[in-house]
Amino acid sequence: MRVAVLGTGQVGRRLASKLIEVGHVVTMGSRTADNADAAAWAAETGGAHGTFADAAADAELIVNATSGTVSLAALTAAGADNLRGKVIVDVSNPLDFSQGFPPKLVVPEAGSVAESLQQAFPDAFVVKTLNSTNNQVMVDPGRIPGRHSLFLSGDDADAKDQVAELLRSFGWAADQLVDLGPLNTARSTEPLVLLWVSLYQALGTEDINIGVFTG
Amino acid sequence: MRVAVLGTGQVGRRLASKLIEVGHVVTMGSRTADNADAAAWAAETGGAHGTFADAAADAELIVNATSGTVSLAALTAAGADNLRGKVIVDVSNPLDFSQGFPPKLVVPEAGSVAESLQQAFPDAFVVKTLNSTNNQVMVDPGRIPGRHSLFLSGDDADAKDQVAELLRSFGWAADQLVDLGPLNTARSTEPLVLLWVSLYQALGTEDINIGVFTG
Repeated sequence: MRVAVLGTGQVGRRLASKLIEVGHVVTMGSRTADNADAAAWAAETGGAHGTFADAAADAELIVNATSGTVSLAALTAAGADNLRGKVIVDVSNPLDFSQGFPPKLVVPEAGSVAESLQQAFPDAFVVKTLNSTNNQVMVDPGRIPGRHSLFLSGDDADAKDQVAELLRSFGWAADQLVDLGPLNTARSTEPLVLLWVSLYQALGTEDINIGVFTG
Repeated sequence: MRVAVLGTGQVGRRLASKLIEVGHVVTMGSRTADNADAAAWAAETGGAHGTFADAAADAELIVNATSGTVSLAALTAAGADNLRGKVIVDVSNPLDFSQGFPPKLVVPEAGSVAESLQQAFPDAFVVKTLNSTNNQVMVDPGRIPGRHSLFLSGDDADAKDQVAELLRSFGWAADQLVDLGPLNTARSTEPLVLLWVSLYQALGTEDINIGVFTG
């Protein structure tokens, strides 16, 4: 499958490399065509890189790994025509570091970044997932033993099925994937990165995730 | 110990009853002295009730079980003099239901309700905990098998120790209690009620909590 990964940070590079590893053709998109991180990643992995629009144009699936505070701008730059009818895997986290550490959560008017994107691009299929844990765990959940969880939120069942299949190819077991239901449940998972940050500070390891327990 | 429970909702009543059960003397506080829920609770349990200030005045420890959007007003009504030098167990959740369901998280200027309270009452010792799960689980964690977690945030180690002891008397095992560190980590746990709501909708049981997994 041809996949666009928008964003050149640690999360974008980690996901893009894993997508190549499991057999996809990946273009990394960034604000400019000459992003140094994207170029270095492409040289190392054999992937392609270009602008957000370059990456999205030929892609069958889009991964949004930009910062949640700029995701709407990034996808707007990618172009509504290039997103139409496609699944957007939204991995973004909306954090405000302007007043230092720890960051504050930004709650968009729509309730979550994922909902903002879906409202802006109603012909795409936004699925929120992966954002709640560390990038190394995202692509290698076996780093953490036990039945820890990964959440999915989205309004389109077929899109969620497609994303769940992708997640299984990353190593997530079917019973680790928790379908929370509609996309507005992303309101409840976008804040989870903050818990990861707190736990990282408290426990001193990056290999942290949460799991669901029921009575 | 003499404990004030501020708030007459399900969470306040549940915690107040449990506090009596484990041997404390409890006064439930509300905005007015004649709150019907508080009076009914007091009649049923042998507890006392009164205004926020009535409850806080004689208490050695304060439990804030008001809605996070009104907690600052409630504690202001309780009176700074009545809070000075006391531990405030902040169980509040700041949710905005004005645009329907699911609610949106409210992020106060301070970063969290807990931090807002600590800033307003610097002579008290705010400890955030319990807010991340259902009220029945709060006082009976054994309803859910396994090593699920309860988080504590606070700037004063002695206050956190005192609250941890209280939580153990509720049935929480020492290794279920996760001290996240300073009170600003409440930014990462106040949103967790939203995840509980999503999971409740998706899974159809109220006995839900999360646990921490590490590599």
